[in-house]
Amino acid sequence: MSMERLDFAVALAEKAGVLGLEYFRKLDTLTVTQKGHQDLVSEADRNVETLIREELAKAYPDDGILGEEHGMEEGSSGYTWVTDPIDGTANFVAGIPQWCVIIACVHQGQVIVGVIHDPVAGETFKASAGHGAFLNGKPIRISDSQSLSNGSVGVGFNGRTAITDAINVVGAVVSKGGVFFRNASGGLMLAYAASGRLIGYVESHMNAWDCLAGMLLTAEAGGIVMEQDVNHALYHGARVVVGAPGVYEDLRDIAESSFAPLEAA
Amino acid sequence: MSMERLDFAVALAEKAGVLGLEYFRKLDTLTVTQKGHQDLVSEADRNVETLIREELAKAYPDDGILGEEHGMEEGSSGYTWVTDPIDGTANFVAGIPQWCVIIACVHQGQVIVGVIHDPVAGETFKASAGHGAFLNGKPIRISDSQSLSNGSVGVGFNGRTAITDAINVVGAVVSKGGVFFRNASGGLMLAYAASGRLIGYVESHMNAWDCLAGMLLTAEAGGIVMEQDVNHALYHGARVVVGAPGVYEDLRDIAESSFAPLEAA
Repeated sequence: MSMERLDFAVALAEKAGVLGLEYFRKLDTLTVTQKGHQDLVSEADRNVETLIREELAKAYPDDGILGEEHGMEEGSSGYTWVTDPIDGTANFVAGIPQWCVIIACVHQGQVIVGVIHDPVAGETFKASAGHGAFLNGKPIRISDSQSLSNGSVGVGFNGRTAITDAINVVGAVVSKGGVFFRNASGGLMLAYAASGRLIGYVESHMNAWDCLAGMLLTAEAGGIVMEQDVNHALYHGARVVVGAPGVYEDLRDIAESSFAPLEAA
Repeated sequence: MSMERLDFAVALAEKAGVLGLEYFRKLDTLTVTQKGHQDLVSEADRNVETLIREELAKAYPDDGILGEEHGMEEGSSGYTWVTDPIDGTANFVAGIPQWCVIIACVHQGQVIVGVIHDPVAGETFKASAGHGAFLNGKPIRISDSQSLSNGSVGVGFNGRTAITDAINVVGAVVSKGGVFFRNASGGLMLAYAASGRLIGYVESHMNAWDCLAGMLLTAEAGGIVMEQDVNHALYHGARVVVGAPGVYEDLRDIAESSFAPLEAA
């Protein structure tokens, strides 16, 4: 079942990307502060998610769906789809061509499918549990870096946790001879970690629709992923630490020393 | 003279971008650590700069040329071209589709032409002194943000200055309610600042080939640019602080309190 859902998710993410890209190009004709700009962004977010929900409901009417814009719709099949229609919304709003469509599928507390599609660069990252990870059809592999001084670490930052989290993590990475990277799309940065472009990614707290696909991609590409209770993450999000085997322990230590504990939810 | 050189620089940057993109796609077929990968990256850097130098030498045989790869070749016309054939080399090497071709031209201590071309996203930012700044032919404008809490600040980071520079600047931006962005291409981040996608950009030290084009773009788009002696910057680089009028003073204060003084060179 997971390969069929994987193929479906890839086609759907790419279809959603076409619609997202149409909105992105339209925004280009408005200035960021022009009246109507924010409306168009909200419309893009909503309508891309609606497209994804409608297609999923047609193909898998008994599956549940959780999306950033429209919340959780429970299913009866035991499968739950999780989607962020436009990840990197701040970039999308500002006109920065670095954002993506994310679709994951969860079954019995396991992420079984993860797809991250970047319409601007024309890149689709996909993974299904036990069957490896791919970029545009070719296998991808985690970095073989053995040291923070070899490669860059993606760092996430959002308004939901202590601001010291971001300050501390950048300080820790740089103090240990590393380089930080933050292009403001957690989905893309996780896909970059999975494909060896970054050596890892850390963020104090991510929502399920932002992180589940990238965590599966990383694991399937040979990376180490800090374990999380996926069913809990669906409703409450999770701390995210993923990395190449040669640097994962350093990244876990950095996260432990940098991030304030997440409040029990 | 500057409009003619501007048109020439735009066409040349786009031609160089085609060659750079060919190499980038070729790298895609190798893994980052595979033997031959680093050679191909070095070849790309060198050959894209050679293409730029050859075309400039044909069109403007008396102009000087300064490039990251092949150094300074003095001219006699009073015009000096400054180019980074591939800015964001770490991204290029790793396969991250965020890098650009930069071409600027200096005359009598003034930057008169600046072009930043992103081949992957298909974006060309251009400016000439006194004639405005454009993205793919349409005028661009600096952000009208009045506060660090409204918009993101690009931060640069490199191995040439104190590591505390990067730690301090991220800490200062975040402490003041701001958000930092670092996609590891100084050229692209300056172009994003000029076009209002970021509200500003700060870096402790940049080389001339990385910063001059973006500084002109920002100034021509209505932004404020920390003044520098361009002739000195050609040989020694410069501190870079650019921003929207509403946040520039905050960014200058952050830079002053965060960055160690540059050593006199």
